[in-house]
Amino acid sequence: MISKETIANDYKTIQDEICQSLEQLDGSARFEEELWSRDGGGGGRTRVIQNGNILEKGGVNFSAVEGKLPDSVKRALKVDHDDFFATGVSIVIHPNHPWVPIIHMNIRYFEMPSSIEGGEPLRWFGGGIDLTPHYVIEDDARFFHGTLKSVCDQFNAGFYPRFKTWADDYFFIKHRDETRGVGGIFYDRLTATDDISWENIFEFSQAVGRTFAPMYTELVNRNRNRSFTEAEQQWQYQRRSRYTEFNLVYDAGTKFGLETNGRIESILMSLPPTAKWLYNYVPEQGSQEEKTLSLLKKNINWI
Amino acid sequence: MISKETIANDYKTIQDEICQSLEQLDGSARFEEELWSRDGGGGGRTRVIQNGNILEKGGVNFSAVEGKLPDSVKRALKVDHDDFFATGVSIVIHPNHPWVPIIHMNIRYFEMPSSIEGGEPLRWFGGGIDLTPHYVIEDDARFFHGTLKSVCDQFNAGFYPRFKTWADDYFFIKHRDETRGVGGIFYDRLTATDDISWENIFEFSQAVGRTFAPMYTELVNRNRNRSFTEAEQQWQYQRRSRYTEFNLVYDAGTKFGLETNGRIESILMSLPPTAKWLYNYVPEQGSQEEKTLSLLKKNINWI
Repeated sequence: MISKETIANDYKTIQDEICQSLEQLDGSARFEEELWSRDGGGGGRTRVIQNGNILEKGGVNFSAVEGKLPDSVKRALKVDHDDFFATGVSIVIHPNHPWVPIIHMNIRYFEMPSSIEGGEPLRWFGGGIDLTPHYVIEDDARFFHGTLKSVCDQFNAGFYPRFKTWADDYFFIKHRDETRGVGGIFYDRLTATDDISWENIFEFSQAVGRTFAPMYTELVNRNRNRSFTEAEQQWQYQRRSRYTEFNLVYDAGTKFGLETNGRIESILMSLPPTAKWLYNYVPEQGSQEEKTLSLLKKNINWI
Repeated sequence: MISKETIANDYKTIQDEICQSLEQLDGSARFEEELWSRDGGGGGRTRVIQNGNILEKGGVNFSAVEGKLPDSVKRALKVDHDDFFATGVSIVIHPNHPWVPIIHMNIRYFEMPSSIEGGEPLRWFGGGIDLTPHYVIEDDARFFHGTLKSVCDQFNAGFYPRFKTWADDYFFIKHRDETRGVGGIFYDRLTATDDISWENIFEFSQAVGRTFAPMYTELVNRNRNRSFTEAEQQWQYQRRSRYTEFNLVYDAGTKFGLETNGRIESILMSLPPTAKWLYNYVPEQGSQEEKTLSLLKKNINWI
């Protein structure tokens, strides 16, 4: 059995690697680190990069927290135990360029004691990567999904189709009837089965974490030198408002953080530097903006 | 018994009066109106003003909707009937000036049939006015609360203290441990009792509605000609991000709208034109920003 300390330590290493890669990608800004501890137990390392060449605001957060679950979270997780341990790496990057996409990555592990005395602990892995382009570039979406499929296929041929659908369903802004972006993969409560061992699930989690930096580097470099207009920048700010709506209204990680008295600046580091809400904005027919909205739908096959 | 049609019609008149006053206050921008109907029944008149001399984005929304409540709302309201009727006027104004406050007003009426055959319908009034200054100006907060107290006192000496505390508790951003602004009054499920008749509650609701425009006009005119710096504008955008957090995470009206498939652009017209999230911003000691944060607390007596 892989210990929670082993998992947390490896996640920390992944955080280090990613921060290094992102600083290199940006070429100018540096991460600032804040170490924090949580009243109920545990803590984290929040690292934030701001006002870079390309990274306007980005956070790469590691945390390993433990303690007692509030009742609301127990009900949401459908568990009957109080004690929990949770560790993870969580990333959101808001670039300053409308043609460079927002990206989100999360890998996490959750554990709680068995409700049966002497039983195996209840534990699972979760995570995923999803992409939110301000303008959907189809070739980039295909590259993104293709990369994720390759990672998944190394572990289980069923992962990509299952986790791709899960991401479509999860990253969905119900009140707008639009997806947050072009999706990606999302998985939760992944446990060992006849098909896959704990070791392999942990390796899969690590592989997801280590796919992030090279893949995002490619997506940034494909588009960072493209020129853009003021109108495109305004559209970017509007798309960020949708991102904000998703995170504050639907995101389970944000809710979990707010309800377990997490460190508020770490939880909400995902929110954009500038967002705009215009009343009843309708893009012009045939525009790139309209095309983007038409591609923010579930069940698009990008492979 | 006052009919729901009478109430809805009077609310419509109040909407007209307020829009006229706000156009006069602004001196340049005009409201644009959208009539909409709801699939389940009823509809509304959304009026939005944008990019004015002083009103950057404001909405004055009237609606009268009816139909079947979704289960989630039934549970939240603790009612056992499906059929409902709800009418109200809802206002949020975001001025373009950091020293002019954001304001919110709502008056509403809710009705559903009795669960006992032939019984009286279940019905109540709700509403309130609250103020969210980007910078708290104590004299303005005193004027604001004094005006509300005068209105309340015409109907019941217990209203202001009760509804002022209710507003402090309601307009509270729990995860930030700060109030949304300097509060005001908030009331819900107000019904006839030995102390007050239905007629008087309706008159109180109308008085709240008709207090809004002259009071906000005074608050705007006190501050609109004040010069301001770019840093103050940036602070305004940050305060708007807190407003966004409250509305998307806690506001019951927003939740009700999202869960009853309300018209999304009307529900979210309350969101600001531009908002900014800076990571871990801490105002300078002794600054106006720090002073403002120190006054975003419950239980400040402004009278």
